[in-house]
Amino acid sequence: MRSKDLEIVGSLTCFSELTRPQLEQLTNGALLQRFPKETQLFEQGERPDFLHILVEGQVELFAGTADGRETVIEILGPVDYFILAAVLTDSPYLMSAKVLEPAQILLLPARKLREQIIQQPPLALSMMGSLAGHFRRMVRQIKDLKLRTSAQRLGAFLLRLAEDTGGIHTATVELPVTKQVLAARLGMTPENLSRAFAVLGDHGVHVKGRSVDIADRAKLRAYCHPDTLIDDVERDLKVVVDSGAD
Amino acid sequence: MRSKDLEIVGSLTCFSELTRPQLEQLTNGALLQRFPKETQLFEQGERPDFLHILVEGQVELFAGTADGRETVIEILGPVDYFILAAVLTDSPYLMSAKVLEPAQILLLPARKLREQIIQQPPLALSMMGSLAGHFRRMVRQIKDLKLRTSAQRLGAFLLRLAEDTGGIHTATVELPVTKQVLAARLGMTPENLSRAFAVLGDHGVHVKGRSVDIADRAKLRAYCHPDTLIDDVERDLKVVVDSGAD
Repeated sequence: MRSKDLEIVGSLTCFSELTRPQLEQLTNGALLQRFPKETQLFEQGERPDFLHILVEGQVELFAGTADGRETVIEILGPVDYFILAAVLTDSPYLMSAKVLEPAQILLLPARKLREQIIQQPPLALSMMGSLAGHFRRMVRQIKDLKLRTSAQRLGAFLLRLAEDTGGIHTATVELPVTKQVLAARLGMTPENLSRAFAVLGDHGVHVKGRSVDIADRAKLRAYCHPDTLIDDVERDLKVVVDSGAD
Repeated sequence: MRSKDLEIVGSLTCFSELTRPQLEQLTNGALLQRFPKETQLFEQGERPDFLHILVEGQVELFAGTADGRETVIEILGPVDYFILAAVLTDSPYLMSAKVLEPAQILLLPARKLREQIIQQPPLALSMMGSLAGHFRRMVRQIKDLKLRTSAQRLGAFLLRLAEDTGGIHTATVELPVTKQVLAARLGMTPENLSRAFAVLGDHGVHVKGRSVDIADRAKLRAYCHPDTLIDDVERDLKVVVDSGAD
């Protein structure tokens, strides 16, 4: 791995507690690569050769059935790993991965990662925190799917996007993906997504292309009940090491 | 912890690689307790004091909204942990837990577990394997919810139950939970569950109380497309430690 690439990798939070020699050992055989839009990185059912670390760009984790149905499970932005659970247990991928926006990805050989995890306790703890975070994201999605109507789910999604924008009462957000991908991510058909947008029209939401105006956040909140135990985005969850004192 | 209880705990797969002194250290302050049906063990939003290990019985993980909707996320049988991700990261529970069938549960103090994980690499690896398994169960459930109709989801659930019974063509299975709990677990209203059973009637499925006859498994399979990447039950997933040779 080139020294410049090693700098990039070393600056990732997940590896911040490794010493330089540990980092060099871990990334021995690793590749930092750029992939164009639409590249399929791996397919469900395959055994993982690498842990993928998304350094830049956007990746979609999706899944399908033998009879051709397909859905989107997650949309990932930097920095995130995929798919740690399969890599650690050397199990077949349950999801496929595709590049949505031109991506820079670090490919860490799976065997090397597992070997280093045994030898480097700080790395093991970091990975455990990430696994916990990934589990909780999936639980949040199941709650979102089971406890909300399609329109409420869409509304809560828009409110999450709006959190990153200025303004208190109104907001304009840009959909981060196409409507087709968004529909799949939210567990709807494209027709159901259109219907959900129509329902939200009565609650001050107006969509034009990928731009969405929210006229009154409070009104939208009252309709879709944002919930910290569903909607919070948890970044960099860590295994908590208590201090010695009780 | 009583010596008899220590035997029970030591016989659990998850602790099989610990030495006796390590086991004693880990279970110092732990409690092995029996809980009657309907006991609520903890509530979503609370911070975890203990890792719960289900030794006997049945537990439901469920979740609700502020406006009173409720759903079932998972039904757990022995031996299983809950909820590891929250305990390790000292994060608020995303789900509540309730006893469905009289249960024997080991309560392992959360702080003690986190302390021991840092000190005992085999324990860390065992927990990492479990976390990976829990993540994959959630992914399987999301695929089940997004890729199947209600009737197909019910059919696939019945086929999973039927795997444990004899017979090749026909099967009679007993629903492990009430229809109300089953409906919530499968992401349906009780009315939708009745409708799904009615649809499956055309595919040889007949329900009477909690007993379900499957007249022709092949026919049911043809309708609901069982899929190893959705339906397989993975037990005791482990972090794979490769042998030195490449």
